[in-house]
Amino acid sequence: MSDRPLAADTPAPLIDLPEWKRFALAAQTCAPRPDALDLIEAPGLALDSSGQRHSSDLMAAGEALLRARDFDTQRARLLAGEPVNVTEGRAAWHTVLRAPEAPAEVRAERERMDAWVRRADAGRRWRHVVHVGIGGSDWGVRLAVTAFGYAGTWRDVRFVANIDGHAIEGGLAGLDPRETLVVLVSKSFTTAETLENGARAREWLTGAGLDPAAHLAAVTARPDRARAWGVPDDQIFRLWDWVGGRFSLWSAVSLSTTLAVGVDVLEGLRAGAAAMDAHFTQAPLAENAPVRMALAGVANRSVLGQGSLNIAPYDSRLANLVPYIQQLDMESLGKSVDAAGRPVGVPTGPAVWGMPGTDAQHTFFQWMHQGSDGAPVDFILCREADHHWPAHHRQLLANCLAQREALMRGKTLAQARAECLAEGMDAARADWLAPHRVHPGGRPNHLIALPRLSPYSLGALLALYEHRVFTQGVIWGIDPFDQWGVEYGKVLARGIVAELDPSSGQASRADTAAASGAADARHDASTRHWIERLRRGGSP
Amino acid sequence: MSDRPLAADTPAPLIDLPEWKRFALAAQTCAPRPDALDLIEAPGLALDSSGQRHSSDLMAAGEALLRARDFDTQRARLLAGEPVNVTEGRAAWHTVLRAPEAPAEVRAERERMDAWVRRADAGRRWRHVVHVGIGGSDWGVRLAVTAFGYAGTWRDVRFVANIDGHAIEGGLAGLDPRETLVVLVSKSFTTAETLENGARAREWLTGAGLDPAAHLAAVTARPDRARAWGVPDDQIFRLWDWVGGRFSLWSAVSLSTTLAVGVDVLEGLRAGAAAMDAHFTQAPLAENAPVRMALAGVANRSVLGQGSLNIAPYDSRLANLVPYIQQLDMESLGKSVDAAGRPVGVPTGPAVWGMPGTDAQHTFFQWMHQGSDGAPVDFILCREADHHWPAHHRQLLANCLAQREALMRGKTLAQARAECLAEGMDAARADWLAPHRVHPGGRPNHLIALPRLSPYSLGALLALYEHRVFTQGVIWGIDPFDQWGVEYGKVLARGIVAELDPSSGQASRADTAAASGAADARHDASTRHWIERLRRGGSP
Repeated sequence: MSDRPLAADTPAPLIDLPEWKRFALAAQTCAPRPDALDLIEAPGLALDSSGQRHSSDLMAAGEALLRARDFDTQRARLLAGEPVNVTEGRAAWHTVLRAPEAPAEVRAERERMDAWVRRADAGRRWRHVVHVGIGGSDWGVRLAVTAFGYAGTWRDVRFVANIDGHAIEGGLAGLDPRETLVVLVSKSFTTAETLENGARAREWLTGAGLDPAAHLAAVTARPDRARAWGVPDDQIFRLWDWVGGRFSLWSAVSLSTTLAVGVDVLEGLRAGAAAMDAHFTQAPLAENAPVRMALAGVANRSVLGQGSLNIAPYDSRLANLVPYIQQLDMESLGKSVDAAGRPVGVPTGPAVWGMPGTDAQHTFFQWMHQGSDGAPVDFILCREADHHWPAHHRQLLANCLAQREALMRGKTLAQARAECLAEGMDAARADWLAPHRVHPGGRPNHLIALPRLSPYSLGALLALYEHRVFTQGVIWGIDPFDQWGVEYGKVLARGIVAELDPSSGQASRADTAAASGAADARHDASTRHWIERLRRGGSP
Repeated sequence: MSDRPLAADTPAPLIDLPEWKRFALAAQTCAPRPDALDLIEAPGLALDSSGQRHSSDLMAAGEALLRARDFDTQRARLLAGEPVNVTEGRAAWHTVLRAPEAPAEVRAERERMDAWVRRADAGRRWRHVVHVGIGGSDWGVRLAVTAFGYAGTWRDVRFVANIDGHAIEGGLAGLDPRETLVVLVSKSFTTAETLENGARAREWLTGAGLDPAAHLAAVTARPDRARAWGVPDDQIFRLWDWVGGRFSLWSAVSLSTTLAVGVDVLEGLRAGAAAMDAHFTQAPLAENAPVRMALAGVANRSVLGQGSLNIAPYDSRLANLVPYIQQLDMESLGKSVDAAGRPVGVPTGPAVWGMPGTDAQHTFFQWMHQGSDGAPVDFILCREADHHWPAHHRQLLANCLAQREALMRGKTLAQARAECLAEGMDAARADWLAPHRVHPGGRPNHLIALPRLSPYSLGALLALYEHRVFTQGVIWGIDPFDQWGVEYGKVLARGIVAELDPSSGQASRADTAAASGAADARHDASTRHWIERLRRGGSP
């Protein structure tokens, strides 16, 4: 496909490796659930893999596979800030943002932001924060604010991400502009959603007779652009080019988090993540939590054919963990070619979805139990609650353990029939109904237990997932740090925006190649229909 | 599997039907995307199926398959309130809740609730509403309140569903109990989550020196139980046994919706759904929107092997449409046996997941474009916005059309390489990078366009999905109205709750058969470990 010589760090095609064949065979042939506890006590959490396929043979095959992928070197390169993002030729050095001995530049920026927040706190400034950012500039903040501010915070934080005008309309509705800080987060400071929504917020401030500059803050790797946009220097906080959006929670991107729940929360998150980084670096592979999760993830996806992964936090405060992990995993591993551009040859990243339990039980667990193929589940629980109703917490935990047990164990036809009879049905009715009450069982799962929902444990949990995703990338040989797939739609959208504008003459042209800049931009019949119709607005 | 004679309405096994084989062959062999507009103008919305496989042969095969499944009769039985829920022997007559000529009992209850809400409105009563319900007693209300109250409402509605104590703690935090109405919604009035959370709310009212009875309302099919629990008769509104939870939005379950956004909204929702019911009944199959969606859904899932379905509403107000459809679809179709208890023989309901665009583009669309298999997408847009920033709406719509176009069209290696060269790369770099910019394309989709987000159009949209799900149930031969798979975990949970209680003596027993009532309740090693450990609480 390419006559360019392979770079030194280009991995061999996975499916050519004898180690891959050995791993796939071991995963296919080992028993789905030996009755043995398989537990790792990692910093900030415990990982129970008892619900995954496991055998000493499979573990040995997994270790051999990682050796064949030069995993030790890859991990060292990640943590040293080398250019592991090969297609974009840069580092993905988010781990240094939380390192105890971070570079002076990182520490200085962190201290500058903390001091700024502490001054705002001391002055009882900003009752409202409107956080404007999308994707990686949004989910981490939503996650932390919901987790630690679930019962309300002194400052009310609103989130505006979507380009849909209803989002910014709802985000500003009812706020007192004099008491509002608008925080714009965009690494490039060119994100369409963020700049448009920011412009509406700026108009709203101006319309209230205020100087918008006094009410704006920005977090970006391009302070020059933020400055030109109208944000004062001392309210611009820095990102760096080597921080990917979906790994940026550890940086000043979390300014709104600190305004809502305090700078201590961010320190705790960083400490927990740093402890997980050390575990990831030092623990032997068989006792290494991210590595074990990655091996299970590859086995489930690429050998056993599971197309999706369900995240089930049994804690309502972790509702935003689902989209956070969804982005982390799917944007990193939603690729079909390896770093050298060759097809990986096996299915890669799964669809990641989920919902907190027990809501999920009343929404889609029917499907998990009795649907055609179900999905592997990551159950997450906190051993201790932060409220004062022990009976609630016992019921929550019991539901988590019971759903997991039911998914693992299943229920046979004979058991279902015996149950029906025990409920007083006659034999004919029991025979007829029993098949509807069969559960196949054997569904794989992890159980991740946090002592309680502290910033430290949540930070460890997020780093666990980061490194799990990285390790799967190493095994599949793909670059988990790029996202070429999101560019194409952006280019097409720029062309269609112009065509939808009734004041432009472009829409009558069937071929918008010139507008979009793409090589072949002729629209299909359906797209043409909708461009014409939407251009006319409300009329049918 | 059963020697009980098959009931008259028991369908034949799908895979034995020659009509099935014909349909499967036609779906496999027809072109993925002919360049032709395939549009149905249905009440309240337009359905564009141009992005699905289509051929006259496939449509004819689909019609033959529906005839072989006795679809006309099944549809008539559904709408006539006959016992289409065969495993539970009862009707699923949600359509009558919105019928213009609803039974007197239904109309009377509707009028009683509307009058009650209008009195509360006239008296400026209840600044806060705490809606306590889960699953089908929750999502429909969240959906409508978010859709029509997105910029805030005079009454503030909080939702409490999860048994997690943090949910009710956060739900009550900061409210003035004197101004708060607590609405409990449970069809059986035995739902553990709802009664526990309701009990906390009642304690909170009592603790404020109030008579809780004056602040409680209930919606249930068991008014006797609500009365015994302490809700006054004139604040209990009725459900009926023949209304399934996931189809109950059309009933008094929406009391909180009417309190937040008005009784007119519910009337509009019902009118739109009734219009879709008429379309579903009368339109020829080839122009019948729910039927066409169902045929595409079966082809994608059971023939083309797509394991999931993505819901992408390009409207931030429809964020809760995703869990609503998730429950509707997965609880209905997440089953592997047909109504006679035989394996269906092909994969049935997919995993349903999603997120509003453009947020979704910054979260997981990378995976949709370049992941191993992607997912079919239902794009949903509103032609007109309810805000006053046309440029926002144009960008929103352009993004929707562009993502859809990119997913359908794809981008070849030659196109990707030409793009790289056009950006100024040298040939070697272009050769190397181009494979990372290839999009396979050919991903199936629907586009559903609402004129604007009116209650009428949203009601039509929800009924469209209800009937799409019902039709898939008819084709697969499964009962979409039961949910046997959710019972097993509940039984296991009851046993584990007792074992987790340190004041009970049960936890030391490895075998909890007696406690759970199950035939074989011996826990596996991991579940035993966690019961022992969680029973001890915070200590490690």
